[in-house]
Amino acid sequence: MVKNRKMLLEEYLETKKNLVDRALEEYFPERDGFSSEISESMRYSLFAGGKRIRPVLCVASAEAVGGREDAVLPIACAIEMIHTYSLIHDDLPLMDDDDYRRGKPSNHKVFGEGVAVLAGDALLTEAFSLLSGKTTGISPEKSLSIIHEISTAAGFQGMIGGQVADLRAEGKEVGMEEVNYIHINKTQALITVSIRAGAIAAGAGKDDLNALSEYGRKTGLAFQIADDILDIESSREILGKNTGSDEDSKKATYPALIGIEESKKRTRKLVEDALSDINRFDEKALPLRMIARFIAERKS
Amino acid sequence: MVKNRKMLLEEYLETKKNLVDRALEEYFPERDGFSSEISESMRYSLFAGGKRIRPVLCVASAEAVGGREDAVLPIACAIEMIHTYSLIHDDLPLMDDDDYRRGKPSNHKVFGEGVAVLAGDALLTEAFSLLSGKTTGISPEKSLSIIHEISTAAGFQGMIGGQVADLRAEGKEVGMEEVNYIHINKTQALITVSIRAGAIAAGAGKDDLNALSEYGRKTGLAFQIADDILDIESSREILGKNTGSDEDSKKATYPALIGIEESKKRTRKLVEDALSDINRFDEKALPLRMIARFIAERKS
Repeated sequence: MVKNRKMLLEEYLETKKNLVDRALEEYFPERDGFSSEISESMRYSLFAGGKRIRPVLCVASAEAVGGREDAVLPIACAIEMIHTYSLIHDDLPLMDDDDYRRGKPSNHKVFGEGVAVLAGDALLTEAFSLLSGKTTGISPEKSLSIIHEISTAAGFQGMIGGQVADLRAEGKEVGMEEVNYIHINKTQALITVSIRAGAIAAGAGKDDLNALSEYGRKTGLAFQIADDILDIESSREILGKNTGSDEDSKKATYPALIGIEESKKRTRKLVEDALSDINRFDEKALPLRMIARFIAERKS
Repeated sequence: MVKNRKMLLEEYLETKKNLVDRALEEYFPERDGFSSEISESMRYSLFAGGKRIRPVLCVASAEAVGGREDAVLPIACAIEMIHTYSLIHDDLPLMDDDDYRRGKPSNHKVFGEGVAVLAGDALLTEAFSLLSGKTTGISPEKSLSIIHEISTAAGFQGMIGGQVADLRAEGKEVGMEEVNYIHINKTQALITVSIRAGAIAAGAGKDDLNALSEYGRKTGLAFQIADDILDIESSREILGKNTGSDEDSKKATYPALIGIEESKKRTRKLVEDALSDINRFDEKALPLRMIARFIAERKS
């Protein structure tokens, strides 16, 4: 039987997700004694059932330029740890105040706010411990440059900058400039660096790296817009009604600013452009191509 | 006029503190636009008048083994940034709930709790950006090993582990094992790594590094005990009364467990031992010797 594209993608995502899960399990086993509670709190969010999109992109990017998955696994896992810390801190009452994450109680609802803050801090810190530890076949120069790219993308002029702007945008009318600033920093920066870090680790040349960075920026932005569309469409479905343009218009999203149909059009265009950015690659970039299409088409 | 030891030490601390302040100012200038608020919040705590003990120890340790201060400045500053992030998060209502730090309103009292959490996150993240950026004359291998040591010392089995235990110890009777765990992780780990990182960057040999690590562990513990003694003695002085053994006995401190006099004895012993650990060094280790004595004798 010839597998269709959807089956191929699902198989790929599942295989890489398991790979990342196993590696994270190895880096963060359960612990006894004084560190048992913080360790349990870190593991709770780390294994809460994320799709592992960022680490999968990191591995797929390395493979696209001929790299091996085991060499980039620590990098892929470190990025997932940084993503996970940002979710724990985002969910706190003093930020977005979300009681649930992926259908399970948020970290602070289970472990308390103090431990949740510290578990986030710890995941961020341990990400750099992992990135600077024994890596397989990556030169110290490259490791340093990967650490520099990741910390910059996650820092106050990257992911954290986007989060601050998002925090300040809450309940206010915001324009396109601000929405773009939030998306570019809060979401796109870490997705782009996932792809760049995988490629750098795998020894990508300058032109390949530039092409992959462009692909990363476009899929990163498409991912965020698609997420906001899904958010509205799924709540409409669940609530059986339009969630109301009043509320929507105060959200820092594309759908709130330009409507759902136009947002869908933009997402499709971004994905098309991302695909032509990586035209230069052979069939080893098939997973990257499938993931880009999946981002525009996914229903959950 | 021959300078006495106290003047020499004050001059040394002042010179190095200014050096660190200038470097931090260069790394974190004021900013406009979307990142102005987070940047202001980071700068508020970074320049709140800390004594810069950790970065000064880092520089002094490098000098003790013949290194130059400019080569280790980024490392010294990164450690101060990590220390500062830990103070911002510690002061949050969901942790120690302190409204003041060094006589000024805490970060979250000025910028709100959301921005305070993010400013802490950003200082931690940017520390690794600094450590992995252009460094002066340190090999990539050494930089990586320094990043690994610092992230491990600051992580869930180091500083954060100590903070979790401290959080859990609040209002409970705790024993010596727990107090030692808290001190070793919350305070000693980052102080020791400040000294180790400076020495590694300066190219210290194995025996020198071991001696400095021992010095670091002892002064690190002495520093925490002296801090807890000062805390009691200064509040007694200010309040004009004994703050009460009931309260004291529930604190995870040496004075609470073994009394003030015995704690002072232990501090002096730790400093003496730390001094003999670095007997092997010549006069370039004079600042390290002065700082160790200062830790045991300081009055504020």
